[in-house]
Amino acid sequence: MNTELTREYVDELRNFIESRDDNSALEMMQDLHPADIAEIYGELNIEEAKYLFLLLDPETASDVLVELEEDDRERFLKVLPPDVIASQFIHHMDSDDAADVIGDLDEEKKQEVLLHIEDMDQAGDIVDLLSYDENTAGGLMAKELIRVNENWGVTTCIREMRKQAIDLDEIYYIYVVNDDNILVGILSLKALLLASSTTKVKDIYDPDVKSVRTSTSSEEVAQIMEKYDLVVLPVVDSIGRLMGRITIDDVVDVIRDEAEKDYQMASGISQDVETTDSPIRLSRARLPWLIIGLIGGIFVAAVISRFEEDIQINPEMAFFIPLIAAMAGNVGIQSSAIIVQGIASNSLGLESTGRKLLKEMAVAFMNGLILSGLLFLYNYFVSKNMALTFTVSFSLFSVIIFAALFGTLIPLLLNRLKFDPALATGPFITTTNDIMGLFIYFLVGRLLYGVFV
Amino acid sequence: MNTELTREYVDELRNFIESRDDNSALEMMQDLHPADIAEIYGELNIEEAKYLFLLLDPETASDVLVELEEDDRERFLKVLPPDVIASQFIHHMDSDDAADVIGDLDEEKKQEVLLHIEDMDQAGDIVDLLSYDENTAGGLMAKELIRVNENWGVTTCIREMRKQAIDLDEIYYIYVVNDDNILVGILSLKALLLASSTTKVKDIYDPDVKSVRTSTSSEEVAQIMEKYDLVVLPVVDSIGRLMGRITIDDVVDVIRDEAEKDYQMASGISQDVETTDSPIRLSRARLPWLIIGLIGGIFVAAVISRFEEDIQINPEMAFFIPLIAAMAGNVGIQSSAIIVQGIASNSLGLESTGRKLLKEMAVAFMNGLILSGLLFLYNYFVSKNMALTFTVSFSLFSVIIFAALFGTLIPLLLNRLKFDPALATGPFITTTNDIMGLFIYFLVGRLLYGVFV
Repeated sequence: MNTELTREYVDELRNFIESRDDNSALEMMQDLHPADIAEIYGELNIEEAKYLFLLLDPETASDVLVELEEDDRERFLKVLPPDVIASQFIHHMDSDDAADVIGDLDEEKKQEVLLHIEDMDQAGDIVDLLSYDENTAGGLMAKELIRVNENWGVTTCIREMRKQAIDLDEIYYIYVVNDDNILVGILSLKALLLASSTTKVKDIYDPDVKSVRTSTSSEEVAQIMEKYDLVVLPVVDSIGRLMGRITIDDVVDVIRDEAEKDYQMASGISQDVETTDSPIRLSRARLPWLIIGLIGGIFVAAVISRFEEDIQINPEMAFFIPLIAAMAGNVGIQSSAIIVQGIASNSLGLESTGRKLLKEMAVAFMNGLILSGLLFLYNYFVSKNMALTFTVSFSLFSVIIFAALFGTLIPLLLNRLKFDPALATGPFITTTNDIMGLFIYFLVGRLLYGVFV
Repeated sequence: MNTELTREYVDELRNFIESRDDNSALEMMQDLHPADIAEIYGELNIEEAKYLFLLLDPETASDVLVELEEDDRERFLKVLPPDVIASQFIHHMDSDDAADVIGDLDEEKKQEVLLHIEDMDQAGDIVDLLSYDENTAGGLMAKELIRVNENWGVTTCIREMRKQAIDLDEIYYIYVVNDDNILVGILSLKALLLASSTTKVKDIYDPDVKSVRTSTSSEEVAQIMEKYDLVVLPVVDSIGRLMGRITIDDVVDVIRDEAEKDYQMASGISQDVETTDSPIRLSRARLPWLIIGLIGGIFVAAVISRFEEDIQINPEMAFFIPLIAAMAGNVGIQSSAIIVQGIASNSLGLESTGRKLLKEMAVAFMNGLILSGLLFLYNYFVSKNMALTFTVSFSLFSVIIFAALFGTLIPLLLNRLKFDPALATGPFITTTNDIMGLFIYFLVGRLLYGVFV
């Protein structure tokens, strides 16, 4: 049922390609879904992939092209001439997929491919779609949909649908428009199936339809489709004319990408990368955060150097530097992760900033008491140095409170300033908390050592 | 089109509830989607919510109940008698939603509610669904679907569909079974729409249908639906009999939950929590990782204490402890995040473990050279202490290499041992890298100070 890609399978296919045994190669792929073939292509070199591509029938080949990882696709489109792209591939694609593929080409090749598309309607649709920002509903939508007039009868409706349905893989909903092409509602296939042949569309459509504007952001599209459990969402222009529709599979990618971006950002990776990317690309994606971390570390070193004498006299204070720094970082990240996630999934509700902060403070207070209590017991019985015992525990408690405060406030602040709040969970907040945490630690140390000695 | 929930709106509604102005309250909610009403309920206290619930017509009330956050729903079901739950709410739900709601009740109440369901077919379906593990296809699926026999003609097919369609909100696909109820294919509404009335189902169905077993894990279900862009996926038992279907909206929740879990795990939060949870719950979810971090910190202190003399003689070595620790942590998390994400989205492909490791090493080598080079320049010109300059840069380079090695190997190892690889990105890897990183640092320091002094 589901094909598990194995090394043996790929090797066998490669052998057939090498020996130019087209029939055996095709036979191996014949029962595969285009998504499976795309996965195989990721394992082949460009020459092998090109060879296989030209073996496939154009329709399957187009589907495979759509399913390819973006990098593989770009690599591959580079070696294909514009007229082949237009006639063999674009021709068989839905407008949204076609626009995605063409949008990835460089300007010159884009123009050439567009000029080679024979179906002027399709070319027009693609040019329309290319004009929208990738991260908006306009950039996500496809033009293909079934559109019926509210004044039609059920019989006309079914006849017209049969005509329009040729362009479509699946029909989920029929969109109802008035004479001005303004979206007025949807007609479910169920309603159509249950209606008698004399009924008018007007009498059976559902006027209660969710829609978005072409300019709505893809995040908002994802939120709306998730919240209302929608499979398709119509897109209208600023005066309500029906422009296209977005299907859930494209939105699943948006949700996945968003989550991956937040996760990568929290892990200190600043660009969207995959394990399959080149080492140089992987390195570039990570360096920015590491350099920020390095500069932060130099700052921390400068802060600690102010306390050089204290360390010389009480070198045991240095032992707990990593503990204080790590706890400040961990607590800060925990607080900000909860806030970032709340913002992302829009589940913060109406709870006011003040209340959220109060709650985080309560959590920090509890955790701070427990953790510094445990550390107190350890140092009391093991290190037996009273000044150190009090210094470390008291600082840990203060550091936890401060880290939670910053961890909560920074993402809220970033969000209000229209920055991505996920920025807060990266090395940025860890470094800030390190600096502050260690400053508190040494300051407390100087005071308490003064008391105990 | 999309209702933005405001403080004013909630306050107005509360006033109507308080003054028992039922009509105004209902009027305020009449154009809202159940998901919007559920959002409002999250803002009300239990008495207000209960009052509003009993105002709504049962069908809307059931939809709202399904849309409520799990915590709100549990809170609410506690105050409702079993017979009301059964007759007013469960009665109007799809089998999967009903099973979810009933599954959340305690054992005693569950039995009582089940006994109060009048429709024996529905009760049977719910009991069947409750027997599956929540995290499998069986736990995700609904029983309602349209099932036709391959031997029927199109006319019989449409007649039977009309009967079955009454139970369903939407129809996306029609499932085709043989006389033994074994799933043999799907029939798209498009094919049915385009077929003439004398055609047989046998001649127009598509035998190429993806399906999963009831025991398939929900993560795998999500991966399959994502990969093949499916809106609905049929579920069969171990001998291929059609048992139910899973729709994409339930899977979107799985994808979102998975991503959130990984993100929280990377942020050191060990249970699924929301900002709206109580401080005690929030605190409990964070303490385990913090305690691990604390124990790690104590270990690190023990490691550094071995070098007490070195610190006393060269206190400037302590300045760079946080930098070394932070860089070890950051590099380790970056490496493991990429691997964890690759495992999660199944995009690691066939690249062998050896090659992945080699690539991570190449990235670490480049980043290590750049970062320790920068730090060398800083220390060379600012600190002007040769022993320190060489020690810090040389250690940083080694630490980056080791952290990348561990960051790559640990999640791969966890995955092979069938643990969740996301565990690796939490404080666990940071602590391990801290210990190892600082040990390297002080060891290198002892050697190099010996050379330079």
